[in-house]
Amino acid sequence: MMDYERFLSSCALKSQGSAIRKMGVMAVRVPDMISFAPGYPDPATYAWTEFQEIARELLSGKDASVLQYGPTRGHRPLIDATLEILAGRGIRATAEQVLITTGSQQGLDLVARALLDSGDVVLVELPAYTGAISAFKNTEARLVGVRQEADGIDLSDLDAVVARERAAGRRVRFLYLVPNFQNPTGLLLAREKRVRLLEWASRADMLIVEDDPYGALYFDDAATADDTRPIKADDTEGRVVYLSSFSKTLAPGFRVAWLVAPDAVAAKLELLKQTEDLLTPSLDQQIVYQAYKRGILTDRLPKLRRFYQEKRTVMQQALRSELGGLVSWPEPRGGFFLWASLPVGFSTDAMLPRAVEQRVIYVAGSAFFVDGSGENLMRLSFSLPTKERLVEGVRRLAVVVKEELSGQRAPVEV
Amino acid sequence: MMDYERFLSSCALKSQGSAIRKMGVMAVRVPDMISFAPGYPDPATYAWTEFQEIARELLSGKDASVLQYGPTRGHRPLIDATLEILAGRGIRATAEQVLITTGSQQGLDLVARALLDSGDVVLVELPAYTGAISAFKNTEARLVGVRQEADGIDLSDLDAVVARERAAGRRVRFLYLVPNFQNPTGLLLAREKRVRLLEWASRADMLIVEDDPYGALYFDDAATADDTRPIKADDTEGRVVYLSSFSKTLAPGFRVAWLVAPDAVAAKLELLKQTEDLLTPSLDQQIVYQAYKRGILTDRLPKLRRFYQEKRTVMQQALRSELGGLVSWPEPRGGFFLWASLPVGFSTDAMLPRAVEQRVIYVAGSAFFVDGSGENLMRLSFSLPTKERLVEGVRRLAVVVKEELSGQRAPVEV
Repeated sequence: MMDYERFLSSCALKSQGSAIRKMGVMAVRVPDMISFAPGYPDPATYAWTEFQEIARELLSGKDASVLQYGPTRGHRPLIDATLEILAGRGIRATAEQVLITTGSQQGLDLVARALLDSGDVVLVELPAYTGAISAFKNTEARLVGVRQEADGIDLSDLDAVVARERAAGRRVRFLYLVPNFQNPTGLLLAREKRVRLLEWASRADMLIVEDDPYGALYFDDAATADDTRPIKADDTEGRVVYLSSFSKTLAPGFRVAWLVAPDAVAAKLELLKQTEDLLTPSLDQQIVYQAYKRGILTDRLPKLRRFYQEKRTVMQQALRSELGGLVSWPEPRGGFFLWASLPVGFSTDAMLPRAVEQRVIYVAGSAFFVDGSGENLMRLSFSLPTKERLVEGVRRLAVVVKEELSGQRAPVEV
Repeated sequence: MMDYERFLSSCALKSQGSAIRKMGVMAVRVPDMISFAPGYPDPATYAWTEFQEIARELLSGKDASVLQYGPTRGHRPLIDATLEILAGRGIRATAEQVLITTGSQQGLDLVARALLDSGDVVLVELPAYTGAISAFKNTEARLVGVRQEADGIDLSDLDAVVARERAAGRRVRFLYLVPNFQNPTGLLLAREKRVRLLEWASRADMLIVEDDPYGALYFDDAATADDTRPIKADDTEGRVVYLSSFSKTLAPGFRVAWLVAPDAVAAKLELLKQTEDLLTPSLDQQIVYQAYKRGILTDRLPKLRRFYQEKRTVMQQALRSELGGLVSWPEPRGGFFLWASLPVGFSTDAMLPRAVEQRVIYVAGSAFFVDGSGENLMRLSFSLPTKERLVEGVRRLAVVVKEELSGQRAPVEV
């Protein structure tokens, strides 16, 4: 067996698997596993019949562009559709500022490659989305965490962190955040803080990377569309790169997402995308465009909101009845995630093997913290399981947590 | 207007657009343009009816995986299908060595990220595929050219280049090449040289990145399947990373390709893919798998070979009758490209604006040379235009070339 270490780049040697993806693999292997781990949308929400009809029409052979190479920027009608969607969110943009990406994961990777050099500082929330963390780490940037409060990022900690990093002679490049129903916490960033973040970016001469896959999925009992107004909507100086996606509202298997950036940045992101995959698959882009054009997306949004809101309510009720007093969480006002706190001293990493024994899994909080904290936290996704499975999964989780707390079980090596 | 230079990474600042992609954009804009520029397959060859039926079945809603997130490695049945295809080419591989990629462009990008650090040397042919050049350049590696002969890479120059680079204290990481009907030259690497390249890799302790999108498209009047046997087929030491694709044989719009690498390298490529796009779109992977499973791919290959062979013959005949004596080329024995030489001193770059005036375009040779040479060369792709358009395009090209040679026109600034 040859040893390949000597052939690998520094980036490859350091790369590590995502905790969430590993959980996904584990969930598939164990029979009757209830997974609260990956943030998968529920396929019951997909417009199967409509997609079938759209695909039939597109694949008639009349328009070769459906299966041909196409522009790196994206299918032009789809770009125009994203401009309409953006306008509905208060964002005025032009086609020159949009890039269709192969999932928002590609958007994050491109942003990292375009804006980060080795050793640069990138600011992320404590906690932050693991996919962004991985993409930023690949550039060998230094990820520095900023604390959160109940209404989103802590602005005084943000100032303190920037001052500290700059005093140490480091170049701070941008702040990454998910303002709407953040992955993993489900938190909604306060409107007033959004305005202050733009002031901060201007004062500190910084860019903001705003990742917004969940904004359209607010829950009517706890939030309004106004509450989700993107930071980008009030970005008069061109300091925000905004990412959004069709993965949570139409289906993730298409891998169709988009970003908006200042013209000069969008042009560089396009060049980098060209070397990454030339273009996002043509058929997928055109199916998504037709789903938008035919009103399928817009029609479904109110139903999607109610659908996931109900799932959230079921999970909350189950948690209260099974683990009330032991587990606390901020109420999710939209999105897919519930961020559960166990008592301090508790380790959700250490508990995971026993949760698997009980056929329930989650993502341990530590995966989301670039400072190594988050030990007593876990992300519970309520988006995919049925209501019955949500209840049963929480019941299983309660067995594990109670066992753990009563100290009936010896610690297990992980 | 803000100046964004201070926010851009070193990689973004250096990135440049691909000459081929620019030609593609130009071709779309000019009415009645005949494009010999991009290597697009002919949509007349796509299995439209079969794809339509497959999509209908897949989108029935019975199997949620069709539109869901899935494993980064790829759809397992498709991975198994690639193993069968590889076996047919003499390559024994396991599922742990395969990664489905979003086009081979992503494969090249992942290979670059996994195997190259800034300042490393990567060896490419003179000329080499521009998409590979861009992907390697993004890592800030140093691209060093190795000369070609009529039967492929010049092995004595290869030895000389490695010796020179190593003597200069540089780390040489791998050799990239396209052995079958190379992009842009159409050359077929001699069988005997393939064996000697493996000996070289072992002796020089080097990896080989073998890119094989065109191998299945050999022309029966000039080559056999045996002639296209991949280097990887005889790779006993695990020194070859092999890439192939469904883009030229099924359709490029799916963006489904794959690579085979030693287990340890494949594992790293998978991790990097995870941060690039999580997975290749699910629907596309499953359509491609079904097209393989139902024999659609295998059935069509002999027809595809004849189809493109006829186009090549038409282009050659037109070139001989219109430009005989002025233009020479190695006969394409497969693939999509004819590599045309004009007399020394001629500049295909300088001629391009006048070709556009005549409504015909090509890719100027210099785009493919990392040493800045190739001025009098051009890549003519015969894959997409109809036979009538091939003849008319060559007629237009002949007008431009003859005008240029007779010096009737003053030089134009490009």
